[in-house]
Amino acid sequence: MSYAIEPWQLRWQGLAVDQLHRTESTFALSNGHIGMRGTLDEGEPRGLPGTYLNGFYEEHPLPYGEAGYGYPEAGQTVVNVTDGKIIRLLVEDEPLDMRYGNAVEHERTLDFRSGTLRRRTVWESPTGRRVTVRSERLVSFTQRAVAAIRYEVEPEEDLQLVVQSDLLANEPTIHRTNDPRVAAALDAPLINDFTMAEKSRAVLCHHTKVSGLRMAAAMDHEICVGEHGGHQDPRTEIRAEADLARFTAAVDVPAGSCLRLTKYLAYGWSGQRSTPALRAQVEAALAGACQTGWDGLVQEQREFLDDFWQVADIEIEGDDELQQAIRFALFHILQAGARGETRAIPGKGLTGPGYDGHAFWDTEMFVLPVLTYTVPDAARDALRWRHSTLDKARDRAKVLGLKGAAFPWRSINGAECSAYWPAGTAAFHVSGDVAYATQQYLNATNDECFDRDEATEILVETARLWLSLGHHDPHDGFRIDGVTGPDEYSAIVDNNVYTNLIAQQNLWAAADAAERNPSDATEEEIRAWRKAADAMAIPYDEMLKVHPQADNFTKHAEWDFENTPEEKYPLLLHFPYFDLYRRQVVKQADLVLAMHVRGDAFSDADKARNFAYYEARTVRDSSLSAGTQAVLAAEVGHLDLAFDYLVEAVFTDLHDLHDNVNNGLHMASLAGAWMALVAGFGGMRDHGGELTFAPRLPASLTRFSFRMAFQGTRISIDVCETEATYRIVDGTELKTRHHGEPITITVDEPVTMPIPKAPELERPKLPFGREPRRR
Amino acid sequence: MSYAIEPWQLRWQGLAVDQLHRTESTFALSNGHIGMRGTLDEGEPRGLPGTYLNGFYEEHPLPYGEAGYGYPEAGQTVVNVTDGKIIRLLVEDEPLDMRYGNAVEHERTLDFRSGTLRRRTVWESPTGRRVTVRSERLVSFTQRAVAAIRYEVEPEEDLQLVVQSDLLANEPTIHRTNDPRVAAALDAPLINDFTMAEKSRAVLCHHTKVSGLRMAAAMDHEICVGEHGGHQDPRTEIRAEADLARFTAAVDVPAGSCLRLTKYLAYGWSGQRSTPALRAQVEAALAGACQTGWDGLVQEQREFLDDFWQVADIEIEGDDELQQAIRFALFHILQAGARGETRAIPGKGLTGPGYDGHAFWDTEMFVLPVLTYTVPDAARDALRWRHSTLDKARDRAKVLGLKGAAFPWRSINGAECSAYWPAGTAAFHVSGDVAYATQQYLNATNDECFDRDEATEILVETARLWLSLGHHDPHDGFRIDGVTGPDEYSAIVDNNVYTNLIAQQNLWAAADAAERNPSDATEEEIRAWRKAADAMAIPYDEMLKVHPQADNFTKHAEWDFENTPEEKYPLLLHFPYFDLYRRQVVKQADLVLAMHVRGDAFSDADKARNFAYYEARTVRDSSLSAGTQAVLAAEVGHLDLAFDYLVEAVFTDLHDLHDNVNNGLHMASLAGAWMALVAGFGGMRDHGGELTFAPRLPASLTRFSFRMAFQGTRISIDVCETEATYRIVDGTELKTRHHGEPITITVDEPVTMPIPKAPELERPKLPFGREPRRR
Repeated sequence: MSYAIEPWQLRWQGLAVDQLHRTESTFALSNGHIGMRGTLDEGEPRGLPGTYLNGFYEEHPLPYGEAGYGYPEAGQTVVNVTDGKIIRLLVEDEPLDMRYGNAVEHERTLDFRSGTLRRRTVWESPTGRRVTVRSERLVSFTQRAVAAIRYEVEPEEDLQLVVQSDLLANEPTIHRTNDPRVAAALDAPLINDFTMAEKSRAVLCHHTKVSGLRMAAAMDHEICVGEHGGHQDPRTEIRAEADLARFTAAVDVPAGSCLRLTKYLAYGWSGQRSTPALRAQVEAALAGACQTGWDGLVQEQREFLDDFWQVADIEIEGDDELQQAIRFALFHILQAGARGETRAIPGKGLTGPGYDGHAFWDTEMFVLPVLTYTVPDAARDALRWRHSTLDKARDRAKVLGLKGAAFPWRSINGAECSAYWPAGTAAFHVSGDVAYATQQYLNATNDECFDRDEATEILVETARLWLSLGHHDPHDGFRIDGVTGPDEYSAIVDNNVYTNLIAQQNLWAAADAAERNPSDATEEEIRAWRKAADAMAIPYDEMLKVHPQADNFTKHAEWDFENTPEEKYPLLLHFPYFDLYRRQVVKQADLVLAMHVRGDAFSDADKARNFAYYEARTVRDSSLSAGTQAVLAAEVGHLDLAFDYLVEAVFTDLHDLHDNVNNGLHMASLAGAWMALVAGFGGMRDHGGELTFAPRLPASLTRFSFRMAFQGTRISIDVCETEATYRIVDGTELKTRHHGEPITITVDEPVTMPIPKAPELERPKLPFGREPRRR
Repeated sequence: MSYAIEPWQLRWQGLAVDQLHRTESTFALSNGHIGMRGTLDEGEPRGLPGTYLNGFYEEHPLPYGEAGYGYPEAGQTVVNVTDGKIIRLLVEDEPLDMRYGNAVEHERTLDFRSGTLRRRTVWESPTGRRVTVRSERLVSFTQRAVAAIRYEVEPEEDLQLVVQSDLLANEPTIHRTNDPRVAAALDAPLINDFTMAEKSRAVLCHHTKVSGLRMAAAMDHEICVGEHGGHQDPRTEIRAEADLARFTAAVDVPAGSCLRLTKYLAYGWSGQRSTPALRAQVEAALAGACQTGWDGLVQEQREFLDDFWQVADIEIEGDDELQQAIRFALFHILQAGARGETRAIPGKGLTGPGYDGHAFWDTEMFVLPVLTYTVPDAARDALRWRHSTLDKARDRAKVLGLKGAAFPWRSINGAECSAYWPAGTAAFHVSGDVAYATQQYLNATNDECFDRDEATEILVETARLWLSLGHHDPHDGFRIDGVTGPDEYSAIVDNNVYTNLIAQQNLWAAADAAERNPSDATEEEIRAWRKAADAMAIPYDEMLKVHPQADNFTKHAEWDFENTPEEKYPLLLHFPYFDLYRRQVVKQADLVLAMHVRGDAFSDADKARNFAYYEARTVRDSSLSAGTQAVLAAEVGHLDLAFDYLVEAVFTDLHDLHDNVNNGLHMASLAGAWMALVAGFGGMRDHGGELTFAPRLPASLTRFSFRMAFQGTRISIDVCETEATYRIVDGTELKTRHHGEPITITVDEPVTMPIPKAPELERPKLPFGREPRRR
């Protein structure tokens, strides 16, 4: 049983209770502020219930067997907040539960253009009563605090129906932790502050025990029984307790008639505002939603998405499943980032509790590039979140004995939550990644306000970090020692090439920004940044003629791939860190990622040799890897391999390749799929702020096209085997390059350019057993 | 208030309640099997109560904020077992408590020749009643399971005295942990299994909750009132509860008469034997002790120590306090190791609960060299403990993906307990250290039984570890990457010179042993060991002409010593690991230790340059450092600096330099003092099994002499400014070298040799503020 292959939607036909934990993630709805897993309306059966508010977390102690100076003491975990999705149905005296009776028909559909999750079920109760249930659910892109559900029941005979619509706080759930104190913190984390129920409306306000954040959830309802046959007003009641508000409607519905319930939901939270203020906020949002009405919300949602697809759509010819998957990816990236608004974009978006709901560098290096070129305002807002956490990052730098700002490895509120410093705190590249995304956004938008008000401060503070972290050394120039790069199978290394190159760009960008805009940077500082950047140490192995990922890397022992069976992957679950760290085994693109984002720092010959070297040692135990490997594979000419990596990236969640989609979707992998297409087969690069393309079609496709925006102009690039056509979708003109050749695209004049033939290359050797699956 | 300076004892005059936590450690008695802190007889006031049985521990979970493969899950902590030291006194109706009334006179004396702790107190009760209390306590070197106390009270007027002698289990104490689960495990860790009290004898048997170890403690008593005046039989009673056995004697004692209580104690524990068997064991030990009697025990103790001082004494002329301190050091090293008998020698001996009672590499590299040359049987027994844990070490190696045996960084029972792998598991040198001590013991004793039955297996299994841990690399030879050397301010480094040199010697020694003795090593293995050892990578910085402690070390940033005030030491409590690791700051001798134990691998010029280089970067935040720095300082000619380091090492505990002597004595530091004298000013080396000397007298002394045993021959070396005299104390003859010149010492013919003048050198630069205190 799997998803039907359709270009604009994800549809699951039939009931598969054992797959619910997966489809709850793939069918999750979110606008970046509210997230709702794709749980069945009636709440059960379920895999993992989940309703999330971006930034709303509970705190718990981080335990250490041996403590150390500067270790974070408090962890943060996303909270499953008051669940407003639940609508239960009693058919005569039998509760609708898909585990009982008979699901005669059942399907759910996530529609990428309407932005809704639809469900249609024909259910026969254990005693043979049959009803058709239809529901449609949305989390509004246009009204940030609002979600809504339309729920309809049509009996095949005259039946008494009772519908219960809930707000349920402190849902029982399973905690995946060994620490009893953490489990205790997350067990019923919400304390009730306020409860109100009147007519069809209810409000519940809660706060968290330790982090002390306050939230409010409200619901209102419209109900009618109608269309054919007799009409009867339902008997309704509403009540509320500390952790439950329930609207109940009971009515006799004649055969062929329809009971229709519309549920409006509003959510709000704050660390500052009072409970009455939050109550007012959700009641106002609810009033707005009711005034817009169901049809209005649906229409706004579609218009929002129409605009998105105009700027972001990717069309694929020759592989329908891939077509569906890439739109699925884009839809979820949009959902993760659309209305985050100075909150983080977590690694899983708001689709599940994986990684405790933390945001990582994935945001800046994988998700933001997509948003920057499709929904730049969302990219800006995510960077504004980083900017809003600068004080915490400065404090962290100070604790670490450094200057400037050290952004956290993993966090919800901006404070470091990583309990294992060699792969957390030491991964200082995260600060360079934030600077990289900032500069990339600036280049792509010319956003002067952001440049002046936020970007410059981010660039300056991160440049200060690098200057205090590295040092000029008589042996090698400006060294950055004892850090951890993107590859988590190495740690605490010297001169990680990725880190040094990202720092170099950071230092140059900060110097430029500080000269362009007012800031507190002195001329002496600016000179020092340029001097450090110009002297940046980039190790090179003269014997092997490749870049070591970091000092000494190419001298380390090789991994014995031939004797590592498939069940020993991911390696980190079966081998100790020390063994991974001391060997030439790469979890995820590191030097290869450097060759993508700082491709300007490598010759073509180096890229080819390096790519082959690291391909033979990269196991892709991280979902962050395949997309980047696709980009470089395409660049050096391995188009088939690039296609295989694209496929792996885009199906990571739909095929549940890591067997953990139940915890949420892998946003960076979905973004990696976009990257594989746009930067890989499209050859899109933006080194130094110049947008360039070098498209090539893989043999598996007959055509593909992609769209993006650059400095306000929307373009499309259509690629077939022999030529590529560049068109203006919206805007005036755009200067760019096609395989190095300058071109100017105008509104009237699409430009069609021939595609040079790819070199014929032997497929590089990969670690034994780690070949991507071929389609 | 401090210790009186006397050559053969440590005496503290007067009462200083706020110093009790310190003197409990310095006055601790132990035979290596039983340890008793120097608590006052009456139990209170006290710093930290403590009675320990070597190897007896409780287990607790090790928590991790982020878990990893191969992390140890169970911690071990030494248990404060049933306290048999307690003897309480009621003077009329007032309990003797030094905090009340008036301590007219009070002194305690640890006697290095009698091996007892004596106490004399003249106490005036709050109501003016005066008694003289004398006690003497011993933990028997000759009867391993036995301790005994002689307790005498002499009233100045006719008084009713009540004496209570206890066995007290689960004494309330303070736990120094943040983890509630660990505290819970150590709170009342003993569960009663058996209780017996009859006449003057009582037995308590307990087991630990989690580790399930069983122990028994027993006591018996002799009491009399005597000497002058009327004689009266005391009224006695005995009773026992689950956690308390108490012998009580009440008697009217006339002025000038004396109440004398002799308490015999016996302890036993086992992980295997039953409670009845343990009860039998302690009752038998008690019967033996009673039969020997107090005077007999005291006499045996003195004879044991007479023999020890004959082989081990060090005489100092020109510094009486140093004379006392070095004997204090030797006495406690003897106490830690004398009767360990296939149990570990913990970092604190059995003097306190510091480091959870764990044994580290300190044992092999610091404590065992002293024992090897003074009480070689004790060194052998400690190595037998390692041998007995080979199965656990093999299991650990397997978990880590390695061959052979990986000894634990810290442990009581042989299983790894380190919760921070970069400074624990990664410090693989511990296995090489075990091999080093094994080979050193073999060279010093020619013990063929041990060579055949235990040493060869240790050497072979550790050699296998190195071969699987390192690899032949085309760049540099045989590399050992990703390990941590002795210096804990670096971690996860490549080619730590100390580790590689100790591994090299280990590989050679294993090859020799496997060719000498039967073992399961194949010829191919032996060839591979020699090949790896011969190709061992030893990094060298050609620009600076020094050995980097590990690859890249000399390229790292310097520490800003000028701006590091004294209160920021030890650095690890005020700076994050990452900052320490990436800089050239050294916690403790590492390359310098390599130059001591593998001095044969360095030229004199390298030694001088390296020493100066590392002196400028070593902060001595570990008590393991000063002794080694003294040795190399003396070798390269900095005799004054060597003397300062000797002083620091030897007074670490007596002057409580680290403000933590309350947790127990620093055995490695005490041993380091011996090393500073014997290997430093004595110039004793044993490279390749050849014993050599190169004595030199520091300006602060007028003469010193030391003694040691080599291959059954006991010698003494007497050093004054211009010459040194070598004598046979016991044995026939010994061939050695004096400053490179071969000499033969015979029984009839002491050899006197002139001492070449030391070079005049400028004192090396040390980190700002880290100069050792000058005397």
